[in-house]
Amino acid sequence: MATAPATIESFRARAAELDAADPLAGRRALFHVPAGRLYLDGNSLGALPRSVMARVREVIEHEWGNDLITGWNTHDWIDLPARVGSKIERLVGAEPGTIVVADSTSINLFKALSAALRLVPSRRVILSDNGNFPTDLYVAQGLVRLLGGGYTLKAMAPDDVEDAIGDDTAVLCLTEVDYRSGRRHDMKQLTAKAHAAGALAVWDLAHSAGAFVVDVADGRADFAIGCGYKYLNGGPGAPAFIYVAPRFADQVEPALSGWMGHAAPFAFTTDYRPAQGVTRMRVGTPPILGMAALDAALDAFEGIDMRQVAAKSASLTELFVAAVEATCPDLRLTTPREPGRRGSQISFKAENGYAVMQALIDRGVIGDFRAPDIIRFGFTPLYLSHTEVVAAVDVLAKVLAERLWDEPKYHVRAKVT
Amino acid sequence: MATAPATIESFRARAAELDAADPLAGRRALFHVPAGRLYLDGNSLGALPRSVMARVREVIEHEWGNDLITGWNTHDWIDLPARVGSKIERLVGAEPGTIVVADSTSINLFKALSAALRLVPSRRVILSDNGNFPTDLYVAQGLVRLLGGGYTLKAMAPDDVEDAIGDDTAVLCLTEVDYRSGRRHDMKQLTAKAHAAGALAVWDLAHSAGAFVVDVADGRADFAIGCGYKYLNGGPGAPAFIYVAPRFADQVEPALSGWMGHAAPFAFTTDYRPAQGVTRMRVGTPPILGMAALDAALDAFEGIDMRQVAAKSASLTELFVAAVEATCPDLRLTTPREPGRRGSQISFKAENGYAVMQALIDRGVIGDFRAPDIIRFGFTPLYLSHTEVVAAVDVLAKVLAERLWDEPKYHVRAKVT
Repeated sequence: MATAPATIESFRARAAELDAADPLAGRRALFHVPAGRLYLDGNSLGALPRSVMARVREVIEHEWGNDLITGWNTHDWIDLPARVGSKIERLVGAEPGTIVVADSTSINLFKALSAALRLVPSRRVILSDNGNFPTDLYVAQGLVRLLGGGYTLKAMAPDDVEDAIGDDTAVLCLTEVDYRSGRRHDMKQLTAKAHAAGALAVWDLAHSAGAFVVDVADGRADFAIGCGYKYLNGGPGAPAFIYVAPRFADQVEPALSGWMGHAAPFAFTTDYRPAQGVTRMRVGTPPILGMAALDAALDAFEGIDMRQVAAKSASLTELFVAAVEATCPDLRLTTPREPGRRGSQISFKAENGYAVMQALIDRGVIGDFRAPDIIRFGFTPLYLSHTEVVAAVDVLAKVLAERLWDEPKYHVRAKVT
Repeated sequence: MATAPATIESFRARAAELDAADPLAGRRALFHVPAGRLYLDGNSLGALPRSVMARVREVIEHEWGNDLITGWNTHDWIDLPARVGSKIERLVGAEPGTIVVADSTSINLFKALSAALRLVPSRRVILSDNGNFPTDLYVAQGLVRLLGGGYTLKAMAPDDVEDAIGDDTAVLCLTEVDYRSGRRHDMKQLTAKAHAAGALAVWDLAHSAGAFVVDVADGRADFAIGCGYKYLNGGPGAPAFIYVAPRFADQVEPALSGWMGHAAPFAFTTDYRPAQGVTRMRVGTPPILGMAALDAALDAFEGIDMRQVAAKSASLTELFVAAVEATCPDLRLTTPREPGRRGSQISFKAENGYAVMQALIDRGVIGDFRAPDIIRFGFTPLYLSHTEVVAAVDVLAKVLAERLWDEPKYHVRAKVT
């Protein structure tokens, strides 16, 4: 029996079948995805959950506007960081009461790294990979410079990290999913290796949380941090989160010790005394507007088993890879083929990648470009359909085949890429 | 000629005259102050500027909802921290381009202190006062513990700070206005003393910015930080700001070194290289919802000379003190009498202060309580009238004279005070 040629039409038919059987299809209605856009960039900024506007309006007009300062008690703003954190716990396999939402991912990494280093006082090396997201490397560089005393950051090639874990490693600090290639580190295996060597492991879940099954408890992560504005859909610059394993939560000494992490913030005493558990990782007054937006956004995950999310991520990305490879001969996949070895994103090496991406965006297909030559596409299981994925490939194939990217305007670099 | 007895009626008449002549009276219309409330707690959480809701709705529904990731360029979210910062510069007498809005006040203090200590590498003492807001002391404690190597925090009684500045002082770290007493430190004099001793000065303007005339340039502050949710009215947990004097801005090495403080954040290089000037004090992705709210809120200051704000603050607080002292014989003023020596707040020592404040709040007069026995009232020049001030005193006098606070429910402590 001859195999039918893999035309875009055949992918379209396959997509329709997959969408019809998609148990998450109903979640799309919870999001505002603007007409005429094929949004493959939810890994940079998640789309707007429809519940956010009403919630933020309520917070501004009623909670702040009418209740003013009493809102801290009346609406329990003070515990929002824990309440929103508890919604994230389920998504990343964290034990109850181990996550708070606070500050930015970068700041939370500083908290986690500084706390972890203190728990391994005899060692001086933070081990990472040089494909880690730059801010993670920058934060580690700032910390080791601040500490002096021989502290260093070793950033290896990603594939060499495992072998580099050794007697000098204080903390293994990795982002689970590589922001460019989409390659997923094996959290459980690398953490076990770190522990066996007497080191701790700090995991950045920026591209993991909300995208597939994460299990920090089973993976024995010591600390984890993550981002609120990617797959969690909390909006631009949404607050981030931080996890501390229960075995350390009452033991860590916060370097960023602020009043919201104090055991009794409203006693206004002059000496810092850390709160119980992960609460001590809070620092200043929580950003209530951003917290409320993220809180509302997380309701889109209510009642979902993360295995469904992972399965849909695998299905969307597999379809995308197959359709691109069938129709875009000049692109080269840089993401692992096996779904379990990647995040919910697919990257291709593309000549003139920047211009290609601008031409795509101009035609409503939104992904992004990562220097020097990567075009990157994110697949958010909650609001993306297989049909959209194939429609995006159709545009991509045309842009490439007809060299539609070859216009001067598509080579003009934007401030933010 | 006999002096008329200072009755509440006479104060009411005086208030009406003052309001009729108030050049800022028109600003009240820019705020939503709920009916039936006399809001004397703008120094904890500023009231809602009416422009905020429309701006936040635009950001959520249009900028995020429709423009998605492209909002970073299309709406220049990326430079909001500097644009909002520039509005604050005028309010605190800072040179153009010296302030960014970012993170929380506590985090910004950590940035300022760690940067300042590096500029005075031969010294080990952070000098503060023990009436400083606790989070400032906690942050300093966390930093010196992190640094080790003999770094210490010396927290003196406020009146002893000036004499304690000496050869060992690396950084003088003070909050200009005491959160309990309202006493204002002399920024210019203490900074000059610090400089003469070879130390630097870091000022916390949490209770200053937006309340009276602040001039960090003339006062030669080396670093300053401040709060977005008090007199700047940015909403609960609004982002904070940080100022670095131009003479140091290109020289400081950020301890919290994140990608948004990098010279080329979208080059995604692996080594941190600080951006020019105060931009290097940015760390992670800016919280756009909170930034936009603060940005809109700051428009309430447009076209106002801060000397008008200071004059009205003096007028409101003087009237309040006079009326309270005439009608509430049991209260003792703990704030300096001279307007130039205090912030825009008045505190009285009150027996059963907690219950008194609860009884006031129950009757629509919102101030707050600071342990052990301080009732505190804030006076926001932009939206408060003299008539409201006298009306609040009327309620206070009744609560005290008739012992209306003496009910069990007013003794129940709330989580947040």
